[in-house]
Order: sequence, then C-alpha cells, then structure tokens
Amino acid sequence: MITHVAFDADDTLWHSEGHYREAQAAYERLLGAYIDVADANVHARLLEVERRNIKRFGYGAKGMTLSMVEAAIAMTEARISATDIQRIVDLGVAVLEHPVELLPGIVEAVAEVAKDFTLLLITKGDLFHQEAKIARSGLSNWFHRIEIVSEKDVPTYRRVLDEVGIRPEQFLMVGNSPGSDIAPVLELGASAVYVPYHLLWAMEQGQGFDSASPRLRQVSQSSEIPTAVRSLAG
Amino acid sequence: MITHVAFDADDTLWHSEGHYREAQAAYERLLGAYIDVADANVHARLLEVERRNIKRFGYGAKGMTLSMVEAAIAMTEARISATDIQRIVDLGVAVLEHPVELLPGIVEAVAEVAKDFTLLLITKGDLFHQEAKIARSGLSNWFHRIEIVSEKDVPTYRRVLDEVGIRPEQFLMVGNSPGSDIAPVLELGASAVYVPYHLLWAMEQGQGFDSASPRLRQVSQSSEIPTAVRSLAG
Repeated sequence: MITHVAFDADDTLWHSEGHYREAQAAYERLLGAYIDVADANVHARLLEVERRNIKRFGYGAKGMTLSMVEAAIAMTEARISATDIQRIVDLGVAVLEHPVELLPGIVEAVAEVAKDFTLLLITKGDLFHQEAKIARSGLSNWFHRIEIVSEKDVPTYRRVLDEVGIRPEQFLMVGNSPGSDIAPVLELGASAVYVPYHLLWAMEQGQGFDSASPRLRQVSQSSEIPTAVRSLAG
Repeated sequence: MITHVAFDADDTLWHSEGHYREAQAAYERLLGAYIDVADANVHARLLEVERRNIKRFGYGAKGMTLSMVEAAIAMTEARISATDIQRIVDLGVAVLEHPVELLPGIVEAVAEVAKDFTLLLITKGDLFHQEAKIARSGLSNWFHRIEIVSEKDVPTYRRVLDEVGIRPEQFLMVGNSPGSDIAPVLELGASAVYVPYHLLWAMEQGQGFDSASPRLRQVSQSSEIPTAVRSLAG
C-alpha cells in the first residue's frame, strides 16, 4: 500500500548538527574574552535569543548567525569589538559552506529503497542552504521531488501529500527528528522509520511520539532502513 | 490555450523594494558617524559585498542584514560600535517585519484573472519571509499553488511547469522584474505580462528581454493586468 518514501536531509542523509555545535563552541571561546562564559550561561542565553528570533528568522544558519550576533552584543553589554562580531559572522558562514559528509551506508540505503518506491526528500530550513547541500550531496537524482519547507507539521505534510496526489496510507517518512519527522507523520495516519542521530538540536528536543504505533519502526543506522521500510510496506 | 497564470509577489502584489531602500538609507546615515558616506561610496561598497555574498546567503533580508554588518565593519575598519551593529541588525528585522501593503488595484486584478485561469504564485527569496508575507497579504487562497524558489531562471520555471503538469504554451507569468519574471518565461516559450514597478533592485537591473515578442504585453498598473492576460490568451 506504501508507494512513496520520503527522506529527511540534515542528520538523516548527512551530518549537520555537529557543524552547528562546533560554531557554538567557537562562539563561547570567543565570548570568553569578555565574560565568564560558564557563569553567564552563554549556551542558555543564546538558545533563548534563538527561540525568540525563530518567529522572525525561521530555521537555518543565517538566522542563527544573526541571533549569535545579537546575543553577543547583549551578553557583553556592547563591549564586544567589531572584529569579534565579524568572527561570529564568519562562524555562520563556515556552517553554510561546510562540505556535505554523507552518513555511512546512506547511499546504499537510498538506492535500495528506490528499487521499490518513489522517493521524496522533505527538509526544513533555509531554502538556499538546503538546495546548496542537496546539490553538493550528489543525491538529488534519486528523488522524484524535493520539498524544502519552513515547518514540518501536520498541515505541511498534508499539503505535500495533496500535491503529490497520494493518501497518508501510501506515505512513509524516514528521519531523525521525533518532532519533525515522526510525530506529525504518525498523526496523519502515515508510516515512519525513526533513525536517531547521536546529536539532536536543543530546539527539537522534548517532543515525543506514539512509540507503540504499528506504523513505526526504529532503527539504529542507515543500513537498516530498507528492511524497516519493507516490513512496514508489508 | 493559456490555462495557468502565475503572479510574482514582491513589487507585483505588494510593495517591497521601498522597504529595502529605507533600510539602506538609515544604514548610510548610521555610517555617517564613522566615515564620509559620500566619499566612501557606501552604496557601491554594500552592493559589492551583497553581490559576493549572494552565493553564500541567497536572496532576502537576512542575507542583506549579514552583508550590511560585514560591509559596515570593513568600511569603518572595525571602528563601528557593537551598539551600532545591533542597530543595523534591527534595520534588517524591520524589513522582515514590515506590514504587507498591497499594490493599488491588485486584489481586483487577481480576482478577475482567477475567473478564467488557475492561479499560481512564484516568488524568489527567503522561504520563511516570503511565507510570512503571503500569509499577511490575505491573498493566499487565490493561489492553487505557491512556489518559493531560490532563483527564477529557465530550469526553475521548467521544473514548476513539469510539477504542475502543463506545457509552456499553457503558462503566463505576471511580474515586475525583467530578468526574473519576463526573460526566462519568454525564452521557455510561455507568455508574460510585464508590470514595471517604479523601483528595481540594483541586482536585478540591466537584464533585457525580447520586447517585440508576440507573447508579451506591458502594462503600467495592476488594473490593466486582466485585459493584457485575456489578450494573450486570445
């Protein structure tokens, strides 16, 4: 009954969160010249600014960079130098430009699933950055359709399914984010393969899903995806 | 033969470029505290940074804001204060958050064209910002499909037409940008209604199109769009 299998991109096809963590670690080191980083709880204050700005900027590295600049100015009470602000901008640019490193076994998994199903790619975030990563990944030809969306919630999945012309019973999502890839897809009545990544963005944490759903499989690595998909497709 | 009419958004449905110009004027005033703005040719230097960064950031207000920060640090040789850098970020946020002001007569024009054609919206830029403006505009229900793309060139239009399932002869684009809305559409063999706006972004300038094409009409205001569309649909 399942005809279409969609893959998430960041931390499902390629490494992503690690690059953001590296940028934030460098950011904390840089702020260490102005404030007691441990005492100021830089991590929590940056997250607070990011959370407020998500409504203005949406997801992605450009919004994160602007939030890092804003939080640095606030935390240092505007003592930070313009040179260091440029260094913060450069940290954001490094995230935008890092080479795409595919997850081990993902190419083989995608190729295997493509034998029996039409593949889609559904990813959240900055349009330009996501397109650049998809191009760099070399994987774009596997996907019949690529959807870059601003939010992965039930209405978004419903719109994509409508545009493709399929019902939820025909759709299966593969991804690493409980809140974006699994919960809304199960809620819609479709199937999901959950492949946790060892890092999860703070803003994606704390969201659960019905782990007892018969329409769900959890696997621990890319190579197990095809078997899980086949088992759900029955 | 024409079945689908697509509208551009910025400066076709609502005012946009004016908000960017306002931000840049405020930016120049702010830099006036550090450098001789006329002498430094702030406008040209910002454009140069933006042009270089378009490959990193893509189009949109967040990329422009990061470019304004970078250019300000370079032009002031890092003398600019963190407080003024925050003011620059705030100028970008103001562009992101400005209310949507529809062009005079556009609602009536869209409603009139919708009587005979399936409407699409095809706009270039930042996914999150464009979605926010579409939502604020109140116009989204008129459009059968909304495509936010990173570049409006021949391959992009071809992809959209393929996804919609129509041939170029069935497609007509309405927009204000010669390089994004008119030239690639005519090149593809589709039709276009050109509605110039009194401002055009520097980076969109200097691009021409075949003004003698029988598949083109030029009008001077929104209210003339329906007649031009009907005349091309023949």
